[in-house]
Amino acid sequence: MSNEEAPIQQQQPEPEKTPEPAEPAPGPADEVQRSAAAPSADHAEEKSHTFRALVLTGHGGYDKIKLQVKTQMMPAGSGEVLVRVKACGLNFADLMGRQGLYDALASPPVTMGMECSGVIEAAGEDVVDRKAGDRVIVLSSSGLWQELVVVPADQTFLMPDAMSFQEAAALPVNYLTAHMMLFEMANLRPGKSVLVHMAAGGVGIAATQLCQTVGRVTVFGTASASKHEVILQGGLSHAIDYRTKDYVEEIRHISPTGLDIVLDPLGGSDTQKGFGLLKPMGTIVVFGAANCVTGQKKNLLAIAKTWYNQLSISTLKLMQANKSVCGFHLGYMKDLALIRNTMETLLGLYVQGKIKPRIDSTYHFEEVADAMRRMHERQNIGKVILLPEPKKEEEKEEEKEEEKPADVSAGPQEEEEAKPEEVKEDQVQEEKDGKSCTGVRNKKEDN
Amino acid sequence: MSNEEAPIQQQQPEPEKTPEPAEPAPGPADEVQRSAAAPSADHAEEKSHTFRALVLTGHGGYDKIKLQVKTQMMPAGSGEVLVRVKACGLNFADLMGRQGLYDALASPPVTMGMECSGVIEAAGEDVVDRKAGDRVIVLSSSGLWQELVVVPADQTFLMPDAMSFQEAAALPVNYLTAHMMLFEMANLRPGKSVLVHMAAGGVGIAATQLCQTVGRVTVFGTASASKHEVILQGGLSHAIDYRTKDYVEEIRHISPTGLDIVLDPLGGSDTQKGFGLLKPMGTIVVFGAANCVTGQKKNLLAIAKTWYNQLSISTLKLMQANKSVCGFHLGYMKDLALIRNTMETLLGLYVQGKIKPRIDSTYHFEEVADAMRRMHERQNIGKVILLPEPKKEEEKEEEKEEEKPADVSAGPQEEEEAKPEEVKEDQVQEEKDGKSCTGVRNKKEDN
Repeated sequence: MSNEEAPIQQQQPEPEKTPEPAEPAPGPADEVQRSAAAPSADHAEEKSHTFRALVLTGHGGYDKIKLQVKTQMMPAGSGEVLVRVKACGLNFADLMGRQGLYDALASPPVTMGMECSGVIEAAGEDVVDRKAGDRVIVLSSSGLWQELVVVPADQTFLMPDAMSFQEAAALPVNYLTAHMMLFEMANLRPGKSVLVHMAAGGVGIAATQLCQTVGRVTVFGTASASKHEVILQGGLSHAIDYRTKDYVEEIRHISPTGLDIVLDPLGGSDTQKGFGLLKPMGTIVVFGAANCVTGQKKNLLAIAKTWYNQLSISTLKLMQANKSVCGFHLGYMKDLALIRNTMETLLGLYVQGKIKPRIDSTYHFEEVADAMRRMHERQNIGKVILLPEPKKEEEKEEEKEEEKPADVSAGPQEEEEAKPEEVKEDQVQEEKDGKSCTGVRNKKEDN
Repeated sequence: MSNEEAPIQQQQPEPEKTPEPAEPAPGPADEVQRSAAAPSADHAEEKSHTFRALVLTGHGGYDKIKLQVKTQMMPAGSGEVLVRVKACGLNFADLMGRQGLYDALASPPVTMGMECSGVIEAAGEDVVDRKAGDRVIVLSSSGLWQELVVVPADQTFLMPDAMSFQEAAALPVNYLTAHMMLFEMANLRPGKSVLVHMAAGGVGIAATQLCQTVGRVTVFGTASASKHEVILQGGLSHAIDYRTKDYVEEIRHISPTGLDIVLDPLGGSDTQKGFGLLKPMGTIVVFGAANCVTGQKKNLLAIAKTWYNQLSISTLKLMQANKSVCGFHLGYMKDLALIRNTMETLLGLYVQGKIKPRIDSTYHFEEVADAMRRMHERQNIGKVILLPEPKKEEEKEEEKEEEKPADVSAGPQEEEEAKPEEVKEDQVQEEKDGKSCTGVRNKKEDN
C-alpha cells in the first residue's frame, strides 16, 4: 500500500476510505454538487473522484510525505458532508506525527491534516444544518490534507462571510488550543501575566490576541529578535529573544514576583523553568514538546521522547508551591461539545474583529516539505498554510494577475478573499522581515 | 524548654516570643485593654500577662500537646494588635503538624493554631484600621491556640456583626481553602460537577456551600453513612458511603462521563482514582494527605510520607488526558493580598447568608486530645472548635444556666452568640447522631 518512490502517483483508496457506494442527496444539494464536481469528472468513472492527497508513508524526514492522486468514490453518508478543500493548516503536531512522535495519528500510510477550510459539495440526506455551497471550517484527527474530504457534518463550522479560506484554515487548531488553555484551564482574568513561548507561532499569536480580549493582561513572549517588531505590533507586552538572553532572568527582572500563567509548547527543561516562574496560584499549561523535534528524523527522538516522559511533578511539590500543572492537546480532546462551543465563541470574536489569524506563508501540496521546514526552523510568523491546488495552474493565474492593475478586484474566482487588504498587510510584513515565502493567494480550483 | 510531664504548668515565654517592652497605645484603646486585661492582672507583674497556650512539645501522639501557662509581656508593636482569643479552629494540618508531617509548622516547642477569633485589646500606635474592642478573625501560620496573641494587624479581619466567635474561628482556613481551590484553581462555573472527599469535614462543608453560590453545580461527596442526612441537607447532591461502596463505581454510575472537578484531601491512591474520574479538561486539586494520618503516632508515617512523595504525573500523561493537577495548601500560601481579597469575598457571602460555618463541637484547651481524636476518627460533621477558657469556670456557668429557663437570653456575657438558635440546631444534630461532644457555648472570659 505504501509507495515512497514517486512524488505523485495514482493510488488505490486507503483502507480507511472504502465506504459502500451511496446515492448522493437529491434536490438542490445534488445540483450544486454536480456542477461543482464537474471539473474532476473528466478523469473519473461514474460517481468516483480523482483528487490529490498528502500521505504519510512512514515515519521520518520530509520525504516520508508523498503527494498521491487517489481515485475513489466519495459518498457523503449519514451525517456526513463532502467538502472541496480550499486551504489546510500546518501544525507542529504534524511535524511530530511525521516523526512518529504523535500517538494520536494512525500508523502510516495515513493521510495527514487536522484542519482545513472549503466548500460543501454534497451533504448526507439526514444532514439538515449544512448544504452544498456552504463555506466551512473542518476539524478532524487526521485526513484533511486532501482536495476532497468526507467528514461528519458536526465537525464542520460555518465560516463568517468576511473570513477568507486561508484564515479559516488557520483558525481552529491554534485558536481552540489557545482559548481552551487560557480560559478553561488557566482561568485568565484581568490583571494577570502570561508567558507565551514561540510567540510568533500560530498558537503564540492566537494566545496574544486572546489575552487582549481581557483587560490589563501582561503578555511576555519568547521569539527570535527578527520577529519582535511584528509580534509587539500584534499586542505582546514584552518580547524576549530566547537565543541571546536567559528568558527566566529577563522575566524576573520585569516581574520579580513571577507569572500567573505559562503556556509551554516546549517541554523538558523549559517546563521546569516555567514552573519555577509561576507565582503562588499560578498555572503552567504544557501543550507540546517542541524541544523533542530537534532533527528532521526519528533517530534522535526516541531518546528525546523518553527524556520527555521523565518530567513529572509530585502532588506534594504542587501543594507546597500552590501551583497547577495542566496538559493540553487538541488531538487527544474527546469533548466535541466543548470544541463546538469554543469554536462558536472564536467565530464570534472574529466577527467582532477581536481576533484575526495571521497567515505567515502559503505552500502548495507539492511544497509540503518546504512548508514543514519553515515551521521546523521556526522561520514563520503566524500560520503556514497548505493549498491543495497544483502550483502550476496557480502560477499561470499569477502571471495573468500581473498583467492587470494591482488593485483591480477579481471576479468570482476570488470571492473567498473577503479582506484582500489584510492579506496585503501580511505580505508587506513578510517583505519587511526579508522572509517572505511564496505568499500566493488561494484560488478556487473548481471554476 | 520543652516539658512533657505536667499537663498544665507555668512556663517561661518561648524563644520566638521575647519582644522588647513597649508602651501600649494610649487613648481609648488603652482603656479597653486595661479593663479587658483586668482578670489576668492578679497574677502578673506590671505590663506582663499570664495566659494559657497549647504548645507542641515534640512530634507524636496526642500527649505531645501540652497546655502551658505563660507569663510574659505582650506589647502590640508597630503594625501589630493584641487580641484576646475567644475561639480557635482545629484543622487537619494540625494533626499532621503534631505528627511531624507538616513542614510549614516550626519545630517543637511551638504554640500551635492557624486561626482564631477574638477581641482586640490593644493596637500598635501606627495601626489605623483596627482599634481595641474590634471583633476580629485572625490567620497565622501558627501560634494562635493561646488566650492572648500579638499578630500583624493585616492578618486580622473584622467580623460581621451577626457572626459568632465560633463561626469566626471556623471560617478562615476551611473557606479560604475551598474558595481558592474552586474559583482560583478549578475555575468552577455553572453546570459543572464536583467531587468533595470528606464532605462532612470543615473544607467539605465549605466547598458544598460555595458550590451552591454557583448555578447548577452537581456536588458528589464521600462520608460515612451516619453523616449523609446532615450533608445532604447542607446541599450535597449525592452522598456516597466510601466505607461500604466503591465511590468510583458509584460516581460512574451516576455520571458516566466523569467529573469536572475533584477536591482531594486524601492523597495516595485516591489521587489516582480522582484523576481517572476527571472528564477531559477536568481538574483535580490535591490539598492534603489525610491518608498519611493513619495512626496516632509517627512511626507508620515516615513510610506513608515517602509513599506519598512518589505520586507524580508526567506532563505527557496530562497532555494526552487534557487534565489539570493542582496542589493547594493555605499554610504554604504567600500571597497575602489574594488571601485578603478572598476573605473579603467570603465575609460578603456570609453577610448575604450564602455561607455559614457549621460547628461540629467545642472543646476547651485542656480537652485538645479529645478534639483531635474526634477529627482523627472522622466523627465530626463540620468544624471542631477549641475554647481557650478553662472548662471549670465554664461548667459553673452551665450549672447556673440550667437553673434558668432555657430560652432566657443571656446578658452581655453572651453578646458574641449572635445566633444562639443555630448553635442549638447543631446540638440537636449532634444528639441525633449519637456523637455529641461537650457542645458547650463559648463565654466571655473577661467579664
